[in-house]
Amino acid sequence: MSTDLLALSPAAQDLLFREARTANTFSTEPVTDEQMRAVHELIKYGPTAYNQCPLRIVLLRSAEAREKLVDLMDEGNRPKTATAPLTAVLAADFEFQEELPALMPHFPQAKDVYFADRAGREESAYLNAALQCAYFILGVRAAGLAAGPMTGFDVPGVRKEFLDDDHFPLMVVNIGKPGVDPWFPRSPRLAYEDVFTTL
Amino acid sequence: MSTDLLALSPAAQDLLFREARTANTFSTEPVTDEQMRAVHELIKYGPTAYNQCPLRIVLLRSAEAREKLVDLMDEGNRPKTATAPLTAVLAADFEFQEELPALMPHFPQAKDVYFADRAGREESAYLNAALQCAYFILGVRAAGLAAGPMTGFDVPGVRKEFLDDDHFPLMVVNIGKPGVDPWFPRSPRLAYEDVFTTL
Repeated sequence: MSTDLLALSPAAQDLLFREARTANTFSTEPVTDEQMRAVHELIKYGPTAYNQCPLRIVLLRSAEAREKLVDLMDEGNRPKTATAPLTAVLAADFEFQEELPALMPHFPQAKDVYFADRAGREESAYLNAALQCAYFILGVRAAGLAAGPMTGFDVPGVRKEFLDDDHFPLMVVNIGKPGVDPWFPRSPRLAYEDVFTTL
Repeated sequence: MSTDLLALSPAAQDLLFREARTANTFSTEPVTDEQMRAVHELIKYGPTAYNQCPLRIVLLRSAEAREKLVDLMDEGNRPKTATAPLTAVLAADFEFQEELPALMPHFPQAKDVYFADRAGREESAYLNAALQCAYFILGVRAAGLAAGPMTGFDVPGVRKEFLDDDHFPLMVVNIGKPGVDPWFPRSPRLAYEDVFTTL
């Protein structure tokens, strides 16, 4: 198997990629803040441009917040979101530059030199927060939990209800232990030759 | 340590996140196609919306292609790109829907029902290819290699030289074993309270 070449252990390969699946049902076992802290302590090291770390995460725990979110999800995503023990809204912070001097102490001018312009900031925050969304999905799996990432929701509605004009929701992620009949059979993937070209 | 709560082994945590760093210098040890195949075999399982798998990767190996790329990088990124044993251009495929019937055999209509519109496809491909960029960075690390992701380059120039109107470059990644004095000291990260809010 070509993955024998990897330095990452087969158990870790399975946990993060090969046996991990997007869950559509969840058990009732709670997901704790301590588990979310552990995920953060790991994935905070994932690289972003200029160490901008633009991802912000809203955890929805109260019944009121959860009900509002369920109403804003596309119909096919409502039952799983209603029954997941924890759901997170993952958003890009378009004013991340305010934290940059602390995040990049060796070049505090980056805030003004590269990120004075809001449109440029939005583009950079969107891409780098998307990278961090992937780190988060893998971090949830690293915690032994299943993630259910979804982009099918009322984006302006979620933004208005849970965020503000400086934060843009990229995805909503259900989090928990898999429930009954939690996923479809694994779909095919592209072959190496369909993805990679060499020049 | 709160990461003791994680199911992922400490060695894997170190390899992928905690001890892995963005490399700025590289040794001369080559990176083989077999290593890239192993990375693909692992990260191809990372989730994307509708299993769209929109990331396409151009590996630059020939001296001619590499010289052209170096000229298109921002000045600060040129020396490291010139000396990395392998450099990859990571791009979103805006016509990914052509592969969807094969990637989603249980719902082949998704191509027409959800992705008939080019503008919507571009948005979805951009976000999902960005997730796959993060999987790729971690996959390179899983192979025991260092990744040097960069967004500082002439985007239209790279697109014109190495891609086409249906493919958009999201980042360029240098790949190899770390060289002499390969990275800066680790920069600070945001605290849990600065990233997470609970409602």
